[in-house]
Amino acid sequence: MSGTRSVDEHLADILRSVRPLEPIELHLLDAQGCVLTEDVLVPVSLPPFDNSSMDGYAVRVADVEKAGEDAPAVLEVVGDVAAGAGRLPEVGPGRAARVMTGAPLPPGAEAVVPVEWTDGGAGGGRADAMAAHSADPSGAAGEVRVHRPVTARQYVRSKGSDVRAGSVALEAGAVLGPAQIGLLAAVGCGTVTVRPRPRVVVLSTGSELVRPGAPLGPGQIHDSNSFALTAAARDAGAIAYRVGAVADDAATLRTVIEDQLVRADAIVTSGGVSVGAYDVVKEALTGLEGTVLGGAEPPGGEDGGDGEDAGGEGAGSAEGARDTPRPPARVEFRRLAMQPGKPQGFGLVGPDRIPLFALPGNPVSSYVSFELFVRPALRALMGLEPVTRRTVTARLECEEPIASPEGKRQFLRGRYEPPAAGEESGTVRPVGGPGSHLLGSLARADALVVVPERTTEVARGDELEVVLLD
Amino acid sequence: MSGTRSVDEHLADILRSVRPLEPIELHLLDAQGCVLTEDVLVPVSLPPFDNSSMDGYAVRVADVEKAGEDAPAVLEVVGDVAAGAGRLPEVGPGRAARVMTGAPLPPGAEAVVPVEWTDGGAGGGRADAMAAHSADPSGAAGEVRVHRPVTARQYVRSKGSDVRAGSVALEAGAVLGPAQIGLLAAVGCGTVTVRPRPRVVVLSTGSELVRPGAPLGPGQIHDSNSFALTAAARDAGAIAYRVGAVADDAATLRTVIEDQLVRADAIVTSGGVSVGAYDVVKEALTGLEGTVLGGAEPPGGEDGGDGEDAGGEGAGSAEGARDTPRPPARVEFRRLAMQPGKPQGFGLVGPDRIPLFALPGNPVSSYVSFELFVRPALRALMGLEPVTRRTVTARLECEEPIASPEGKRQFLRGRYEPPAAGEESGTVRPVGGPGSHLLGSLARADALVVVPERTTEVARGDELEVVLLD
Repeated sequence: MSGTRSVDEHLADILRSVRPLEPIELHLLDAQGCVLTEDVLVPVSLPPFDNSSMDGYAVRVADVEKAGEDAPAVLEVVGDVAAGAGRLPEVGPGRAARVMTGAPLPPGAEAVVPVEWTDGGAGGGRADAMAAHSADPSGAAGEVRVHRPVTARQYVRSKGSDVRAGSVALEAGAVLGPAQIGLLAAVGCGTVTVRPRPRVVVLSTGSELVRPGAPLGPGQIHDSNSFALTAAARDAGAIAYRVGAVADDAATLRTVIEDQLVRADAIVTSGGVSVGAYDVVKEALTGLEGTVLGGAEPPGGEDGGDGEDAGGEGAGSAEGARDTPRPPARVEFRRLAMQPGKPQGFGLVGPDRIPLFALPGNPVSSYVSFELFVRPALRALMGLEPVTRRTVTARLECEEPIASPEGKRQFLRGRYEPPAAGEESGTVRPVGGPGSHLLGSLARADALVVVPERTTEVARGDELEVVLLD
Repeated sequence: MSGTRSVDEHLADILRSVRPLEPIELHLLDAQGCVLTEDVLVPVSLPPFDNSSMDGYAVRVADVEKAGEDAPAVLEVVGDVAAGAGRLPEVGPGRAARVMTGAPLPPGAEAVVPVEWTDGGAGGGRADAMAAHSADPSGAAGEVRVHRPVTARQYVRSKGSDVRAGSVALEAGAVLGPAQIGLLAAVGCGTVTVRPRPRVVVLSTGSELVRPGAPLGPGQIHDSNSFALTAAARDAGAIAYRVGAVADDAATLRTVIEDQLVRADAIVTSGGVSVGAYDVVKEALTGLEGTVLGGAEPPGGEDGGDGEDAGGEGAGSAEGARDTPRPPARVEFRRLAMQPGKPQGFGLVGPDRIPLFALPGNPVSSYVSFELFVRPALRALMGLEPVTRRTVTARLECEEPIASPEGKRQFLRGRYEPPAAGEESGTVRPVGGPGSHLLGSLARADALVVVPERTTEVARGDELEVVLLD
């Protein structure tokens, strides 16, 4: 066990070791929430042709320039232009084509008169809609009376007025939400190259653990960490697999982890990392040489590990990645200057050197550790920024002063209230006690209150940093 | 077409019609993000037994009360208590049991001495860890030297100190995030009763629409709305099915919707709701009597529709729901006093009277309409509160004044900057123009800027309401 490290040092070590996942090509909707790794250019301007922004009549400007309420311009309707129409009628002088929103502006026409400015071809004064063509096809012919003039290009959306061919629709680094997915579909992208969601295998360790729903024997408790951590991994954007609880046997645990390597971009364990005689994770993961976890091939050498994107140049470069020097497989167990969450393991395992997070087993410790260390790493794997949660400063609300251990950064669970009108900072009220087994109060918290290392007591009104959990 | 309604009236009409989905029982991890519909009681206290909060030695207080750095108390080790142990050694006077974090406090013991306050049984002064039992089983016997006294119950977590049997672990209405799922697992819940995620069928209409990735013919554009709206529905928490683009033929559209009813809790269409001659959604959904969409059974009568939860009394009451009077199947098409998004359809269809949202076809219009009307409805179906997005007040940043149509609530797309230190409100800068076809700028926006109905111009520095989109 190495010496004590700070929270910041441990996170920095983790982020230095974690590289964004290699990009893959996904169908557009499968890429939701992922980060684009290439600029997407616009192949065809959007809209791809001049089109009508209204349901109305495509006309020549000169034909309607004298149109008025009592002196309509009367035009011959030469046909319908529905959206999707391929063959377009020619709009000559004195003529109009009935045109639908989004349909191409037919040749000869210069502007569109909304149907509400015409009689809709029905001859009975102002119309408020067209009759459905299926019920009354006569509107595609005959005459239309136009009661207002239009200017050139009025109610016409010009080709390329949204995005132009050759321009960048979305830049590398963009996160694909609904609007971005809509834009990519609109410019014709059926698939995109993005960093995938990491596949995270979650398991808890402990011979005392029983599946929820099953009865408890003496000395047994229900496994909760594998559930909370699986949910937290999904919440962070990962595809999470809950393996469940593994008994405290090092050989079994090692086999389980080895079996899971094939589907894991990261592994999260809980329990078995402290100073006890049955701390199975520490036992199983200390000294990996010669095991599958140590890597089937000999290590390629020490790694520079500058944390930069090694896979930005293209998808499917798994072969290339194999050729780069690999860091040694090693899981280091540390004491951190924090409460809860003092004992922590982190390292890279298996032939692909995937990150393994060995979190402490107390439920609140594992949850807080996930928030502080695993979530940022998962976001880094996805290429998302920032990797950390939003923090704010808030005034502490509490009746009695709260003691905090000197030299440790303490994370209290709390409920945050945003600033009232006219206030600069909100308030935060601790829920439950500092115990690392208090799941009941954790479930009522929406924030972590950070008590710095050198602070030994906090009291009502103190301004503290708060990590917002939602 | 009815008269013009305000945005608020339309939303209120929708929310009055939408009832939360009937609760169902789900496995714990499948219920992530869902709302609990029943209080969950704690069946067995947590922790279920007194247990150790440290790796150390379970002792009697009197045996170590005079222990000191140079005068250790020497105790006989009667065995190990690992987590999950069923049979426990008795700790008599002068004796200690080696105990692991989370393991039961053995009978006779009153407190736990951390291993770091002992020699760990090795006889060589202070230990910093136990040897792994698998490598060195001798630590479970022999002697241990204790260098510090402990008080009664020190490093003991008492039975029920987290949550007590019979108390409420989580109340109905709780949203199940990682911490809540962890708590429910800890109290032994393998399954929970929650409102399910709504299944939302998304389709776009228009004969001009071509699947992204396929080449465009004359007058054609790529279908983007079904992608953006599917992603938006997922983002709102729904399980969304993208059906894709349906050509402008009323019979076809009606058949497609009828076929989808079996898997839909809500249907979202885009396009075909305006005043044109080929507005297929309006044509297909006006006058539903005698169709499957109108309901296989005759309507049970007009509905009081107070919007309260009809399903809160228990899961699986689908039969009961059938017996309550059903509102008529009807889709009403309206003009709203808003820009973009003027033409809108909403109604209840099919035997189960599921909500159908007929959104306009312009990409920005459909997106904004989804945000304002569909997202709140989906959240209401899930029982989530609040149903609307967070709004803030922000100062407008723009070079030139921006005109806004009188009598319409305009939604500009913008980028929001939170308040700088010392400022009460942030700023928002419009991106792109007001055109409802501008997807390029929508993809750069993270906020909707609300220009009220009576405002005809906004300028730099104006304080405006802003809807935050993330």
